[in-house]
Amino acid sequence: MTGMPRWPVGLPPQECVRLLGSVPIGRLVFTARALPAVRPACHVIDGDDVLIRSDASTLAFTGTGPVLAYQADAIDPLTRLGWSVVVVGRARQVTDPGRIASCQRALAPLIAGTSDQLIAIHTDTITGFRLAAGEAAGHAVHEEGRSP
Amino acid sequence: MTGMPRWPVGLPPQECVRLLGSVPIGRLVFTARALPAVRPACHVIDGDDVLIRSDASTLAFTGTGPVLAYQADAIDPLTRLGWSVVVVGRARQVTDPGRIASCQRALAPLIAGTSDQLIAIHTDTITGFRLAAGEAAGHAVHEEGRSP
Repeated sequence: MTGMPRWPVGLPPQECVRLLGSVPIGRLVFTARALPAVRPACHVIDGDDVLIRSDASTLAFTGTGPVLAYQADAIDPLTRLGWSVVVVGRARQVTDPGRIASCQRALAPLIAGTSDQLIAIHTDTITGFRLAAGEAAGHAVHEEGRSP
Repeated sequence: MTGMPRWPVGLPPQECVRLLGSVPIGRLVFTARALPAVRPACHVIDGDDVLIRSDASTLAFTGTGPVLAYQADAIDPLTRLGWSVVVVGRARQVTDPGRIASCQRALAPLIAGTSDQLIAIHTDTITGFRLAAGEAAGHAVHEEGRSP
């Protein structure tokens, strides 16, 4: 795979939210046993939050809740064109039965038996970029959207 | 998207390495400004390491190098069948010109202008799971491969 390198073009928050909502699966990034951990999960956009199915035994909610990242992307492995978005924020446990019920149908668990928790992260910290063809000139690289 | 939940079936390390090597793009998980961070990146398997293109301004190598996670997956959004693997380990900066040169062609940067660093993570800590149809009985769920 020796595709052309692509230029990251920063995306406005509302476009990042739209792209995140356009796919059903992303990756939850957290800390487990003091080590970085990352797992696929499914999500929906609900108002100003991204709601994510999680595993109660993985995420401990003590006090204000852990700070997590949730990422989704769609990058063609051949053309290397696509996008990536990340939400970073404090996770809140969704306990309101009405909200849980309304998301139940849209958010079936990805992993059977272990996705018994519904968490919310506010999308006000969403960032992302599109991978575009062409030269760097004229493309604004979003600081938070830079890729390593 | 209300596909069936799937059962995670733990995979042996050699199968995890094979799956990781079967795709060109994954996600690097690290800490930035004391917050969880995740970015798409490209990689190749080279001996006992996964080699990843990184951004020298993102990852600071002081002393022994940061502990990172590198994840790849391929999950069909409709059937929800697929797999996910994660390597967690201390990142080493690849500085040997011979090794850099030999990986140069196989590992073109994903992101232009910012992928000026080559890092290695040993694959001895790789874990992963396959998402399978069917009942839980008879499927061994790998502890580290559980999804939130």
